[in-house]
Amino acid sequence: MSIVAREIHLKSRPHGLPTAADFTATQRALPQPGAGQLIVRNSFVSVDPYMRGRMIDEPSYIAPFELDAPLDGASIGTVVASGDERFPVGSTVTHFSGWRDYALIDAASANLVDTSRIPAETYLGPLGFPGLAAYAGLLQFGKPQAGETVFVSAASGAVGSVAVQIAKLKGARVVASVGSEAKANWLRELGADAVINYRETTDLASALRAAAPEGIDVYFDNVGGSHLEAAIEVANDFARIVLCGMIEQYNSEARGPRNIYTAVKKSIVLSGFITPNQLHLWSDFARDMATWIEAGQVKSRETIVDGLDNAVPAFLGLFSGNNVGKMLVRLPA
Amino acid sequence: MSIVAREIHLKSRPHGLPTAADFTATQRALPQPGAGQLIVRNSFVSVDPYMRGRMIDEPSYIAPFELDAPLDGASIGTVVASGDERFPVGSTVTHFSGWRDYALIDAASANLVDTSRIPAETYLGPLGFPGLAAYAGLLQFGKPQAGETVFVSAASGAVGSVAVQIAKLKGARVVASVGSEAKANWLRELGADAVINYRETTDLASALRAAAPEGIDVYFDNVGGSHLEAAIEVANDFARIVLCGMIEQYNSEARGPRNIYTAVKKSIVLSGFITPNQLHLWSDFARDMATWIEAGQVKSRETIVDGLDNAVPAFLGLFSGNNVGKMLVRLPA
Repeated sequence: MSIVAREIHLKSRPHGLPTAADFTATQRALPQPGAGQLIVRNSFVSVDPYMRGRMIDEPSYIAPFELDAPLDGASIGTVVASGDERFPVGSTVTHFSGWRDYALIDAASANLVDTSRIPAETYLGPLGFPGLAAYAGLLQFGKPQAGETVFVSAASGAVGSVAVQIAKLKGARVVASVGSEAKANWLRELGADAVINYRETTDLASALRAAAPEGIDVYFDNVGGSHLEAAIEVANDFARIVLCGMIEQYNSEARGPRNIYTAVKKSIVLSGFITPNQLHLWSDFARDMATWIEAGQVKSRETIVDGLDNAVPAFLGLFSGNNVGKMLVRLPA
Repeated sequence: MSIVAREIHLKSRPHGLPTAADFTATQRALPQPGAGQLIVRNSFVSVDPYMRGRMIDEPSYIAPFELDAPLDGASIGTVVASGDERFPVGSTVTHFSGWRDYALIDAASANLVDTSRIPAETYLGPLGFPGLAAYAGLLQFGKPQAGETVFVSAASGAVGSVAVQIAKLKGARVVASVGSEAKANWLRELGADAVINYRETTDLASALRAAAPEGIDVYFDNVGGSHLEAAIEVANDFARIVLCGMIEQYNSEARGPRNIYTAVKKSIVLSGFITPNQLHLWSDFARDMATWIEAGQVKSRETIVDGLDNAVPAFLGLFSGNNVGKMLVRLPA
């Protein structure tokens, strides 16, 4: 059996919002896996906002994508050829060689997962890095106490929707910001106490103040820009701001929070973090999250596009808010 | 004895840089102190950058100054009339009714100090709130470890100069930013390992990178604006940024750090704080600081102007960097 993989490559480094012309699809014949290698047929590949940062050629916490090489990212699939007896053909694994239909990977980078009780998609969402981002960010840095008010932006996204639900589990009052009425309705289903549709709002700080009359104690930032500024404005003394992502700033001239001095006056702590630095929490996270998911206390949605050729449009759609919950690309079995 | 006090009042709320026209001097006849009251003849009154914030009529951690009422602030003087036997006439006290030559105060707001070994001026500098700001900010939030690099802006100021010296005592390498060669020379005397004269620098981030080739681990921010941006740019992963003051932003349209997203990528924590929230450290601080001062390990300077009528020019001079060390107004005995 010779397997030809189809891969999405980065062709040019985007300035501003990427376009389809920055990407290209190519084919590659995969060799048989050597000892310690696997070939995986991906069933779902993840597209995530943070990938925009990897398209810039600068040192960062994760290597930039290379030009004329396959993009990568979280993925889940079925082992179709194995050079490692721990991963028999037919087993389901998560790994990091996404953006392609078939991947030749080191077995050491694969994780066996059980999809009999929890669906495959969930391992790229609440039980994957987005879930860990929400769990670690909120609990390590946000530290919400029962009765406090937590504000979550991009609250219908893969990270935000989990952060909302963990905050509710911890007894907080939750204010969520989203970009459509459909998303707002879903957030209410998830238990958000107040929801702001920022696209319908001309004065975000006022809307936030109305939604959180007692001020906010924790802000989980996935947006940056105007949202961060509004959160600082409405923050209570000793508020904790978790800097997880800033999707508003990935494609455009960055704007810093003009009211940053308010962080002094209110003794606010802003904590930036990246999920790869939180892997020490993985076993606690995986246990808690699986429990919450199976108990129906953490729910998730996916926005699924079909076919590798739609991976680029799916990725670009993240910056227009096209996704409710996790944006995933589904590949044919 | 009837005492007539001369006081500086706020006449109008400044927009942008205050001017002399925003202030006025008035006289007031003081009654004899009642039980539990003192009259103090001030020998030094403090003018501090944070007072600019109190000239704005908005809720904050400390009440705004009232119009047509005396300004206040840290002061030290001699008790000249006493309604409290714990504070006999002739004793020296610190208190918070500055901006005037004679003050009628509640004895409960006064602290007896010993000026036999430590000069009076020091109680408004390293042994006063500026010293506590440096001590609490650096040790509670900056947490410099031996061998790390600490960057301090406005490093020749009352707070910055103490922060530099504490960082050195903790074994850190210190990079200091100042606004003149004279200040730079003093910082070298205080032990700073590298000094940047920001007024001679067109690219602060590059200058900082050259001065801190291994990056910075702690930034003690007294300036905000361009300094904060440069510090984020040159920060190492897991850097701690202490937001103590932002003198660049007190009088002008605020500008947020455009590279705030870098705080995510580098897992930077930015901690705003105000000194009044750090009073639980006072006894440790006073013990440590007195020890360091008496051992010559923390040195201080004052820029002294004479006469209450020069209090306003002294205050305004803070925003031009006219002071080396603590800016104080000395009143005749």
